[in-house]
This record gives sequence, C-alpha cells and structure tokens, in this order.
Amino acid sequence: MAVTPHGRTQTTLVVMPRRADSSEVRRNNLEVVLRQLAMSKTASRAEIASATGLTRATVSRLVAELLELRLVRESGRAGNQLGRPGTRLELDGRHVLAIGAEINVDAITAVVHDLSGAERARRRHAVDAAGLGPELSVRRLAELCGQTVADAVGPESSAGVSIAGIGVAIPGIVDSPRGVIVDAPNMRWREVPLGLMLRGAFAGLDAPIVVDNDANFGALAEYWCGPYAGTANLVYIIGEVGIGGGILVGGRLLLGDGGRAGEVGHMCVDPNGPLCGCGRRGCWEALVGLNAFLRPLGGSSDAHRPEIRVKPVLKRAMQGDRRVLDALDSLGAWIGLGVANIVNVLGPEIVILGGYFTDLAEWILPSIHRTLRERVMIVRQPADQLVAVSTLAFRGAAVGAALHAIDGVMSNPSRVPPPVPVLEPHAIAHAGAHR
Amino acid sequence: MAVTPHGRTQTTLVVMPRRADSSEVRRNNLEVVLRQLAMSKTASRAEIASATGLTRATVSRLVAELLELRLVRESGRAGNQLGRPGTRLELDGRHVLAIGAEINVDAITAVVHDLSGAERARRRHAVDAAGLGPELSVRRLAELCGQTVADAVGPESSAGVSIAGIGVAIPGIVDSPRGVIVDAPNMRWREVPLGLMLRGAFAGLDAPIVVDNDANFGALAEYWCGPYAGTANLVYIIGEVGIGGGILVGGRLLLGDGGRAGEVGHMCVDPNGPLCGCGRRGCWEALVGLNAFLRPLGGSSDAHRPEIRVKPVLKRAMQGDRRVLDALDSLGAWIGLGVANIVNVLGPEIVILGGYFTDLAEWILPSIHRTLRERVMIVRQPADQLVAVSTLAFRGAAVGAALHAIDGVMSNPSRVPPPVPVLEPHAIAHAGAHR
Repeated sequence: MAVTPHGRTQTTLVVMPRRADSSEVRRNNLEVVLRQLAMSKTASRAEIASATGLTRATVSRLVAELLELRLVRESGRAGNQLGRPGTRLELDGRHVLAIGAEINVDAITAVVHDLSGAERARRRHAVDAAGLGPELSVRRLAELCGQTVADAVGPESSAGVSIAGIGVAIPGIVDSPRGVIVDAPNMRWREVPLGLMLRGAFAGLDAPIVVDNDANFGALAEYWCGPYAGTANLVYIIGEVGIGGGILVGGRLLLGDGGRAGEVGHMCVDPNGPLCGCGRRGCWEALVGLNAFLRPLGGSSDAHRPEIRVKPVLKRAMQGDRRVLDALDSLGAWIGLGVANIVNVLGPEIVILGGYFTDLAEWILPSIHRTLRERVMIVRQPADQLVAVSTLAFRGAAVGAALHAIDGVMSNPSRVPPPVPVLEPHAIAHAGAHR
Repeated sequence: MAVTPHGRTQTTLVVMPRRADSSEVRRNNLEVVLRQLAMSKTASRAEIASATGLTRATVSRLVAELLELRLVRESGRAGNQLGRPGTRLELDGRHVLAIGAEINVDAITAVVHDLSGAERARRRHAVDAAGLGPELSVRRLAELCGQTVADAVGPESSAGVSIAGIGVAIPGIVDSPRGVIVDAPNMRWREVPLGLMLRGAFAGLDAPIVVDNDANFGALAEYWCGPYAGTANLVYIIGEVGIGGGILVGGRLLLGDGGRAGEVGHMCVDPNGPLCGCGRRGCWEALVGLNAFLRPLGGSSDAHRPEIRVKPVLKRAMQGDRRVLDALDSLGAWIGLGVANIVNVLGPEIVILGGYFTDLAEWILPSIHRTLRERVMIVRQPADQLVAVSTLAFRGAAVGAALHAIDGVMSNPSRVPPPVPVLEPHAIAHAGAHR
C-alpha cells in the first residue's frame, strides 16, 4: 500500500484479465465437440457445427481427430453415407473407463463409469481403516478396484480397455495437488502421501490418479448427475463418522487456502456441547456424526459398514421406540441448525445430504425442515426446498471421483491413455496385490 | 436423471465451455492497456506492447482511443517526441471521479476517488436511518455526496468532471441487479427500491448506480487496496449494529442465490444464547453486534456515529475498569468463535475485521487469537495470522463502492459518461435537494 503525501490511501486495481492462445483454442474446440456429442447422444457433423457455432470444416477436422482417438464412432453405417456430413456420430466410450473409489472410516467403495458417464459396476466392503492403516487400506482398495473393473468389463475383456483416470476420496483435509492426506482425524491418518502409495498400487496403469476430500467429490457427483445436476451453487454434506462439506460456487469447487474449505463438521454450534473427536467442544460433528448419534442408543460396533450399523436403530424407529424417535427428532434439529448456518453464510441453491443421513431421511426430514424454517435468514423458496437427500446414498464420493476422471477426458480428449488388456483383477491392482 | 434398463444412474457432463467473440476481444484489449498503465504509472507504447503481448500497431490504435477518451495523456512532451513510440504515457484520471457511499443504522458516509484509485475527499455524518426512513435518508445521502464531490474537485470545478459511477452500500440483503433492498433488519427497511430512489436523487447525472451489501463492498475495498490487496480468497466482516460478511473466492464476490450469501451475523453459535434483533436466539450478531456489546455496559444512545458511541467504553478500558475489560475479552472470544467457523467452512487466506472492531482492536485481538488457536481446524500459518484489522475503519464499504465504479471504467473504458460542470453541491444532488 502506497500512501500519498496527504496521508491518503493510494489504491491499485491489480486484477489483469487473461488472454487465450491458439493451442488452447484447439483443445477447447475438441472439448466443445466431444461434450456436444455427450449431450445430444447422436448428431451429424452439420448439427454439431450448427449447435457449437464452429465451421463445418473445423468440425470435420475435429471429428476426424476424435474418430482416430476412438472416442467417437460413425453410427449411420449405410455405405453411400459413410464420412459424409450427414452421417450420424455418437460417443464411442464403452472401452474408456474411470475408477472412482473411497476409503472411509469403516468401508471402502469402488465404482467404474464409462465415457458416457454411465455406471458399469460397483462394489463396497467393510474395513477398519484406522486399524489397518494406510498401507493395508490401499492394498485392499486396489484389489477392490481390480475386481470392480473386471465386473465392468465382463466378456469384452480381451479387447482391452483404457483406464482414463482413478479418483480416490478420503474423509479429511487433502492437499490434492500434492496427493497428500493432511489430516483425516477419524481414521487417525496424518501427512499420508496417498497419491504416491496409490501410484505404486496401480503401477500397471498409466492413468492420472487424483486424491481429494470425500465431500468435494460428492458435491461434484451431485453437480454431474441426479435430480440437481447442473445446479451451480450447491453444498453437499456427507454424513459418516465425520461430517464433511463440499461446496460448489458457480459450478466450481471451493477449495480454500490449502484445501481447507468445507470443514463444516468442526463448525462450533454449541460452545457447551459434547466433546468432539477432534478434542474441541460443540463441533457440529460431535452432535450429528454417525458415532455421536449411535453411541447413546447403544448402536452396533464400528467394524461394520454404516448402512449395517444404522439398521437396528431404523428397526426400533419403525416399532415406535420413543427413545429412538426422540433421538432422530433431535438429530434432525441439529442437522437443520448446521444447514441453516451454511445457508446463511453461503446462500446455495440447494444443500444435499449424503451418507447415513440418506438412510434416516424420512425420520429426520421433519425436524430438519422445522429448524430451517426457524433459522434461515431469508429465502425465495419455502425453506423445505433448500435441502434434499442424495440419490447416491453412500457412493456419492466414489461416483464423483469417477466422473471427475471422465470430465478430465472431456476437457482434454487427446490425452486418453492407450488400452490395457484386462485378464483378471490383479492386472489392475498389480503392485497392490504382490508387494 | 435418466435411468438405464439396468436401473443404474445415467449421467450427463453438462458444463459447456464459453467461447469469446471479436468485439469482446477489442474491449478486453482496451482494458488490458488501461490497467497496464494504471499499474505501471507511466509507460511507452513499446513497453505496453512488451508487457501485454499485444502488437505495437494494436497498442497504438488502443492508445489513440484512450487519448480520445481523455483517460490517458502523453507526459513526455518534448516536441520531437510527441506521438512517437517512445513517448511516455500516463493515466489522465483526475477528472474521472467515482462516488462511494454508505447508509448504515446510525451514520452515512461518502467518499470520492479518481481513476487512479486515489481518495480525493470523504465525509461522514450521524443519521438515524430507521427513524428517517428511506426517502429522507436518500436525500441526506445525495446532499452529502454533492458536498464531497465539491470538496474533491476544489478550484478545478469549472473544467468539469466525469462521474463514472455511484455505488451505495447498505447493511442488509440486497438484490443488486434489481437495486432493491430485500431486507435491512436493523434499519427496518424491507423491499425498498433504493436504486430507483437514488436515480431520482441523482437525476442530474448520467452515471451507473450500483446498490449492494455493505460487507460485499467492504471485501472489494480490501481486495483492491491496503495491506491485503490482491488476496483472492478473503473474508471481510463488518462490525456495526449488525454483523455482515463479504466473501471473495478467487477474486470474485460470492453472492449466493439471490444475493443471500454472507449473512454471517445470523449464524447460530449458541442455541441458548441471547435474543437477536431478527427474533432468533444465539445469532452471532446477538453476541458481537455493536448494540449487543454496548447495552450491558450502559453505552451511549443510538443517535451517534459508532466511533462516538464506543469512546466512553474505550476510556473506561484505559482506566482499567474490570467490567469493561471482561466484556472486551468476552467480545473477542465470541468474535474468534465466529471467525473460526468461517475459516473452517470457507478456508480463506485472511479474515479482515472492519467497522467498530477496528476501534477496539488492541483490546479484543488477544482473545480473538486465543479462540482461533483453539477452534480453527487446521492452518498452515499461525492462527493469529488468519485475522487482521481493516485500515479503512468505518469507510471500507464506501471505498469499495467507489472502487467498484472505477473498476467498471477499467473494464469498459469507452463507456465513461461526458463531463458535467460542478459549480456547487446541488448540481450533483439535484433532485435530492429540491423535491
């Protein structure tokens, strides 16, 4: 800051706009054509030109490149039409696969999606991530991923598939560019170089590996599919042992300085509240996390998947158990209070609840809605419509991780890795299975 | 959401990238040259070409346009150099002025800045905005703005000035595109068409008028000037009777759906806490707002400016009054708790405190820092460095409103309105003074 002779503040308007260069324009145009085909399912070169505003000559050149890359195929195969401007084109994406995975406190998940975004297979197992530690957890995850790819490929395996990318979600603060878990308190993992460990476990694959926070990937999943797809200002809250938040602003993840945004679980909502796993008092997570909810009800042990752990409670709720019904009502009120805070601070169009909240939805939504009506400062729609329950249940983070890899192909189609043969699961989880 | 025959979720990657057209490129290049000059203070055409990557011919054409608009002048006035590539150029902005103003619960503020961003004049008066109501408050504000422009122009008045824009800050939820105050609870203004009323009050001026939330403008002021200028992820908290938040993400204001983001004052931090002016219990504002702080200390009445109202308390603190010192320590702890929540959710690089918090800084910072160390989930820097006190005291919002108008000129230089003569204040506040 410069101060003028009169002691007044001298200001500088520092923000310079960016200019694009021509290689960027070429990559961008390839992306535009591929996304147009992904959206329209089938189109001719002429229709693509008309929809995108590109010239027909440019579209023909770009389509030739996408045909070469085997990301697009001609579907109108009548002999006299082949290659002509009127020939139908469609995405040729069944052999381009992305792996999305999640390691959480008591479960690991893997999903495989193809270039069209469609899910091709999924698997989910119980683990004790804190007990196993990072090394063994990564080995288990790599095996699960290998099996899930084998499920997805089925009898087509001999033709080979391209693994376009691997995304792995973690419940904690992740320095995604470095691939390091900074702190995942509920798994007691700190400063774990997960990216490097995954690179070892998937040594047979030449695919980009991205590690990020589970709620961030979950938010992307909600943005890319399901009833709220395309909602640019969206918050996703994942309810597990920990509570995380993924925040989309204008269709982009709010990462915060060093990936620290979205730690909504440690928002203090009651300075005199219960002790949190992080050692502080009255964190939101200490009131609405899975363990915080189950412990006073005598819930089952940590060695099972969350969807198994909540089953006895749901059964007691259905039998009209007053203690459980009161606990569910109180859980909803605390969820509502935290969601209201998030709405007042961020003003999103929708807050989507995932994880174990989805299983309890019908029991907790009434008190969530009541609290939102009381606590949200101002809304254009009824407060009830500010909150929704995810349709992806416990696999939101893994689905987001897979779709993030697919989005990477869409953004830069010329970077799809070459196909690898998939003979059996260990071909994928090579190093993970053998070291 | 489409569901495939196998019952699996069909996804669509919906986000299409944008392409630029040629008129946009021309406007962008004019902006690039003007901002380059604003940054470098003085430069030749050749230096501008080299710094921006534009060709010399393009720069010469753009400079000619800026000379024509009188936004730039040639400063190397040696006869044989004039117009040559080596001639020095500089911003010619002293006649291009922007008005920034604020109406708050108990004070109105006006500042005038010129094209270089430098402050040229400022004025601040006590008002009772709730008592006066919107009509009279706008009239007072227009008069204050007229006087402040006259202060700024001084003896140059006969040459005329261009008023590039007027920004007005309001403590409440503002639908800025419509210019409507949706709700300013502490002034008891609801659904007030302030943009239209200001257009009437400044009928003599052909300048854009922008109305926005005080904390949003305050955040922009911190981004554009002062010790944290250029910090792209920044939160500004304004401490007045109400508490507002302005959130910058990647150098852009987080507006939220319908301008609802930043209502940090109504974040619930203690469900059993005191009653808030909004009727809810335990809002942050009910613990750290100016009235909430002063009332138990027997603070002075609402009819004075906040800086006057806190003076007796500061005096008692300096005399070692135990009750006041305890109240200041407790105020800092509650401010720290709310700031920690904001840091955990948003992960900004810095949180800047403005308004009455700046006057109390030395008394409240120790307990703010203590609470941040306890409550912030994870930081790369010492927690103390997450919070700073604004150097703009009570005029942050008005400064941000003025700089926002200057930024509008920088973004679209060809839209500067023609000069108007400034003979006396009523030439600016025309309709405001006479209807």
